[in-house]
Amino acid sequence: MKLYPEGANRKKQLMLGKNVAIGDNKFLIIAGPCAVEGEEQLTEIAKFTSKTNNIVLRGGVYKPRTSPHDFQGMGLEGAKLLSRIGKQYDLPVITEITDSRQIEFLDQLVDIYQIGSRNMYNYDLLKEVGKTDKPVLLKRGMAATIKEWLLAASYIELNGNNKIILCERGIRTFETYTRNTLDLSAVVAIKNISHYPIVVDPSHATGRKEMIIPLAKAALIAGADGVMVEVHNDPKQALCDGQQSLNLDEYGKLVSELEFLTKIMKDYE
Amino acid sequence: MKLYPEGANRKKQLMLGKNVAIGDNKFLIIAGPCAVEGEEQLTEIAKFTSKTNNIVLRGGVYKPRTSPHDFQGMGLEGAKLLSRIGKQYDLPVITEITDSRQIEFLDQLVDIYQIGSRNMYNYDLLKEVGKTDKPVLLKRGMAATIKEWLLAASYIELNGNNKIILCERGIRTFETYTRNTLDLSAVVAIKNISHYPIVVDPSHATGRKEMIIPLAKAALIAGADGVMVEVHNDPKQALCDGQQSLNLDEYGKLVSELEFLTKIMKDYE
Amino acid sequence: MKLYPEGANRKKQLMLGKNVAIGDNKFLIIAGPCAVEGEEQLTEIAKFTSKTNNIVLRGGVYKPRTSPHDFQGMGLEGAKLLSRIGKQYDLPVITEITDSRQIEFLDQLVDIYQIGSRNMYNYDLLKEVGKTDKPVLLKRGMAATIKEWLLAASYIELNGNNKIILCERGIRTFETYTRNTLDLSAVVAIKNISHYPIVVDPSHATGRKEMIIPLAKAALIAGADGVMVEVHNDPKQALCDGQQSLNLDEYGKLVSELEFLTKIMKDYE
Amino acid sequence: MKLYPEGANRKKQLMLGKNVAIGDNKFLIIAGPCAVEGEEQLTEIAKFTSKTNNIVLRGGVYKPRTSPHDFQGMGLEGAKLLSRIGKQYDLPVITEITDSRQIEFLDQLVDIYQIGSRNMYNYDLLKEVGKTDKPVLLKRGMAATIKEWLLAASYIELNGNNKIILCERGIRTFETYTRNTLDLSAVVAIKNISHYPIVVDPSHATGRKEMIIPLAKAALIAGADGVMVEVHNDPKQALCDGQQSLNLDEYGKLVSELEFLTKIMKDYE
Repeated sequence: MKLYPEGANRKKQLMLGKNVAIGDNKFLIIAGPCAVEGEEQLTEIAKFTSKTNNIVLRGGVYKPRTSPHDFQGMGLEGAKLLSRIGKQYDLPVITEITDSRQIEFLDQLVDIYQIGSRNMYNYDLLKEVGKTDKPVLLKRGMAATIKEWLLAASYIELNGNNKIILCERGIRTFETYTRNTLDLSAVVAIKNISHYPIVVDPSHATGRKEMIIPLAKAALIAGADGVMVEVHNDPKQALCDGQQSLNLDEYGKLVSELEFLTKIMKDYE
Repeated sequence: MKLYPEGANRKKQLMLGKNVAIGDNKFLIIAGPCAVEGEEQLTEIAKFTSKTNNIVLRGGVYKPRTSPHDFQGMGLEGAKLLSRIGKQYDLPVITEITDSRQIEFLDQLVDIYQIGSRNMYNYDLLKEVGKTDKPVLLKRGMAATIKEWLLAASYIELNGNNKIILCERGIRTFETYTRNTLDLSAVVAIKNISHYPIVVDPSHATGRKEMIIPLAKAALIAGADGVMVEVHNDPKQALCDGQQSLNLDEYGKLVSELEFLTKIMKDYE
Repeated sequence: MKLYPEGANRKKQLMLGKNVAIGDNKFLIIAGPCAVEGEEQLTEIAKFTSKTNNIVLRGGVYKPRTSPHDFQGMGLEGAKLLSRIGKQYDLPVITEITDSRQIEFLDQLVDIYQIGSRNMYNYDLLKEVGKTDKPVLLKRGMAATIKEWLLAASYIELNGNNKIILCERGIRTFETYTRNTLDLSAVVAIKNISHYPIVVDPSHATGRKEMIIPLAKAALIAGADGVMVEVHNDPKQALCDGQQSLNLDEYGKLVSELEFLTKIMKDYE
Repeated sequence: MKLYPEGANRKKQLMLGKNVAIGDNKFLIIAGPCAVEGEEQLTEIAKFTSKTNNIVLRGGVYKPRTSPHDFQGMGLEGAKLLSRIGKQYDLPVITEITDSRQIEFLDQLVDIYQIGSRNMYNYDLLKEVGKTDKPVLLKRGMAATIKEWLLAASYIELNGNNKIILCERGIRTFETYTRNTLDLSAVVAIKNISHYPIVVDPSHATGRKEMIIPLAKAALIAGADGVMVEVHNDPKQALCDGQQSLNLDEYGKLVSELEFLTKIMKDYE
């Protein structure tokens, strides 16, 4: 008996680092701050999250912000910091790439490229990461259909790179209570019609920290292969997205509830 | 430790029939055909589903169909049939009310009134069911914000009836892969900001039977107080919504997975 | 040469009152307050607007408000007032009907029934106005497709009433700058694929009075058969929708610009 | 008396080529094929359209197609062809730029850069065209709010380039009859709250050629500074977007109707 949706191809595991993988019952957690802000911040978060099983450390250094007046990220310095601290705590690291010229130096510094929602239709960028051999996490565009999203993944795969992870992060609708509308049906669809692993980002989907834990668990039960969450050591002082970031205690609670559910589901099968 | 979202007020139980209730850890299943089609159909479905714990039998008799050329329901004869078979199998019954003039006879025949998505803004109808003493299941309008939905519930409550169950059934978005987009964030929001129990209808939300089981389970984990699903003894011959109806075997599978999860969560607390 | 979209069937004229009609180059203006508030208010508005050619006086008396705490309309007294003042100034009158039980007395008092956006899917109400012999203005539901809207019109027509006027009033989208998003493509579609006259309501579509004049003119040029606008003698004191109501001077400006364009287009043909 | 929306700042004219400008009553037409396909095609279109007043020739050479299997454009060879034929017929030319590395050679070949809908949030690309001194036409993202669109323009302007033209091309909604939903309210908003000229693209907004002429005229009346339309000498054979391209005769009809309206409005003021 299976708690996973029927028809799901979960047999393929994608290695992301030493002992870190996604797919075939390896549930992945990607956690870290919206933006890398400095050594102290990142160290504190990395130290805490490094106790989690099967985790990737996230941290934005090139931030595509709606307003040009908002904090745009630490850039190359931030990427170097992320790389160094990831190595120190033995965590694979992921950061968003926003321009193909960044590959030249990011390739030495990060383990996974993230394509953000705003760049899902940026086919030139998709082609370029498709020429690298690093895993690519492809977020769904904020108004992209499931079909368009899978075709965007094809731009990567046709250029030679099949290490693709999809990320559902909410779609834009008329509802304003949440920042976006999390589409968990898309998780079921992706598991049924594609062979890519998929993670869910409840932080960006809702913009509300009180929704992250219940929706992360719902995502797991719906069949997601992992979650991506924003975590900050001091959310109120965060330079970006503080209102949707878990603090370290809340993060600990999230992990323990997800581990409980993962264990139950394995026993159940 | 709780698997339910924090801040949820689940202490209020609403009785729906002998031994049937919703709220405060009583997880409700509402199941039955889209439309009551005849005695044989309804008997077969009622007989099978009556083995489920804490269940309400659904069946539409006044069908608000997009096209006037589609089957419009059996009307009063259907309501009588639903009532009789409900009593025979000891199941409370729910049907959709589409006009306040139906109250006169439905009041003797059904246990719960359903206000459909198309009538969520029909405030005259809301006022009239608000004057009855029967529980009302209020579906979210297909483009209604959470705030508008709660204000629609106020139209019922201000007329004297506080036996309200909300039902999330998907919202209309640009995505065409699913019939609507199920908004599980709304479940978390409702549990946080209101005192109403809420059920989730994955059948109408997705229009795809293969999505019903994973999303029903995800709804439970996100904090829903129940699910509403379309079940038919012979989905291929159904006069309405066959493509999104579970057959009896699939329904059995749904129930056993939901019961497993419910039990786990109680143990966990 | 035609400034109207090709393929439009504008040859059918629907009479709405003595010397008032819509279709076949008779451009209709429907104007008046969101809600009938009292004799002085309505008299002042009727007196001013009665100088307009081919006009219908609007005024809501049963107001389907999102919140039950907002002003719900004057009801029957308002309908009587609207009827009396319409007769006094020789203006056909339109009001929204929200429940079929209102037909009994509204039938003596109004010239046109309006089905509001919230009731477009209220098929029982559509059937009932379909049994009357009065023209029906059918607003598009806030999330209704063009196809669903035309099928809603069929509910009226199949019950015997083919005096139908459609009204585009904006659809619900992600954009929050305007109250809704006016869909002028729908006007072109309706003129191409149906035989119904169509009016445009820029007041509800935008919720912003500064947009009413340019969009009313654009609607005319796109092929609409009329416009419906909210006008108030004292918008700041209006009990409903003041921010989207023209005052009398602005209304005069609107009419003179629409008349200029209508004249030009006739000369051009 | 003005037919233009009040509050509009139309006093600033932006020069786009010898005798070609936009703003302050200079109504611009941008016309040409979706994609440059070859010398014969482009010559025929350029020859015909070059008789139009105040026109820019468009032609895509880097095509961001949803599917990687669709025609991706002629690339640099196409850009050279567009440049040569533009010069031959004395037409300024515009093409879409999809990657900042294209600036190096496009800068010699085109007069205006187009940022497509899919790249409106590609802030790195916006910054790079902001460093050039060429006019930039910035299409609205398919799910971008008016505010986000204006902030995207700020990314260009803050990098030193204030030669910006906005282009409304329809937004993504639930409606499927049209490819997108043209938002003419956005034209009125932009004229009221910004100083940028704005053009409207009814071809992409609707995906239906029969809607182009009525909506182009409606756009003009709503206050747009120009229109952008797809024109092909043989739409049925077009490699891209044939169903929404005008043929040369239809284009001629569009231009004559727009010129008539432009003249009337000038006389009226």
